[in-house]
Amino acid sequence: MKTKSISPAVIKRLPRYYRYLGDLIKKNTERISSKELSTLMSVTASQIRQDLNCFGGFGQQGYGYDVKTLHGEIGLILGLEKGYTSIIVGAGHIGHAIANHSTFKTRGFNLCGIFDIDPDAIGTEINGLTVKSMDEIDSFIKENKPDIAVLALPKNAAMGVADRLVALGIRGFWNFSACELCLPEGVAVENVHLSDSIMTLSYRIKETESKGV
Amino acid sequence: MKTKSISPAVIKRLPRYYRYLGDLIKKNTERISSKELSTLMSVTASQIRQDLNCFGGFGQQGYGYDVKTLHGEIGLILGLEKGYTSIIVGAGHIGHAIANHSTFKTRGFNLCGIFDIDPDAIGTEINGLTVKSMDEIDSFIKENKPDIAVLALPKNAAMGVADRLVALGIRGFWNFSACELCLPEGVAVENVHLSDSIMTLSYRIKETESKGV
Repeated sequence: MKTKSISPAVIKRLPRYYRYLGDLIKKNTERISSKELSTLMSVTASQIRQDLNCFGGFGQQGYGYDVKTLHGEIGLILGLEKGYTSIIVGAGHIGHAIANHSTFKTRGFNLCGIFDIDPDAIGTEINGLTVKSMDEIDSFIKENKPDIAVLALPKNAAMGVADRLVALGIRGFWNFSACELCLPEGVAVENVHLSDSIMTLSYRIKETESKGV
Repeated sequence: MKTKSISPAVIKRLPRYYRYLGDLIKKNTERISSKELSTLMSVTASQIRQDLNCFGGFGQQGYGYDVKTLHGEIGLILGLEKGYTSIIVGAGHIGHAIANHSTFKTRGFNLCGIFDIDPDAIGTEINGLTVKSMDEIDSFIKENKPDIAVLALPKNAAMGVADRLVALGIRGFWNFSACELCLPEGVAVENVHLSDSIMTLSYRIKETESKGV
């Protein structure tokens, strides 16, 4: 399967397709036309056909898409079958929320460790995992070779920790630390800037006021 | 100040400018050139000049931007001075994380209520607020008129709750519920799809593998 020619815009939409198709599987929907999927997802049917044709046309004229097959293929493209393993650095509120988020159970990102520097946090249990000291993180990573680190720590600590983890072999960061990481090529980063997100919401509300909606 | 002609792409970048400028204020930086800002933010200086010229050119040739003025102007465009008030629906892990997130303190989104249906959660305290029963939400909203509802509840409950809150006058939703809301025009929505975000990270890690980085 050719995946190298997929545009970033399509890639950005794939998790959403994956999510909707997963919901359809739960509802025992076996196949769906691009038109039905377009209504469901509020995008045009031609957009859907264009997007999904990138992977070699899973749909069949007059039949539509086989939901399970398409879900599986998109999962493959997203690397979900790789079984990437994760650790969380920072056992505060965000760390708790992420450790308990269903995404680790349902998407296959096996969470294998949680770390903190706070003596009060170390030794406590979060979703079945005991919080370990940051002093143990080097040996833990060497032994368990996790792929992903979730950074749920204050921004002034995040860059230093990220550098340390890259040196230990972490290949991807899910960054909640309200800072941008400057990392070597070949290390993947996905930022979740909650503060940017609510500021965008604020702008949109203000915009509806100015439109007098 | 004209704000109507600002493109969505620029709007999307404004929170990031706001964040960086806020950091500069903390460091007592009074002015900055587009070149310095571009290095800091890893975007081109011409992009910065273009973006910021949309608001009528706060910068001066040879002087650069006055950091506090620019920060203030962007805050105005984002509506941060409006003092929007918020409630959280769902006192689970995400609700806790959001209630304790610094964004409410530093960005002016005054959090005034947290609601849940779980008897074990009702009456507990989160960051100084007592969790109230959903039975009280109608009278609370009528009395306190919050602008924003943070949806931190399971997706099968989210749409029903959102409809109810729109009818009560909520104008913006910060949606963590892993579903997409279908709401009337004039109601603003900002989705935080954590599951999509980590799937994107997964794709990026997989991509570095295929590139052999």
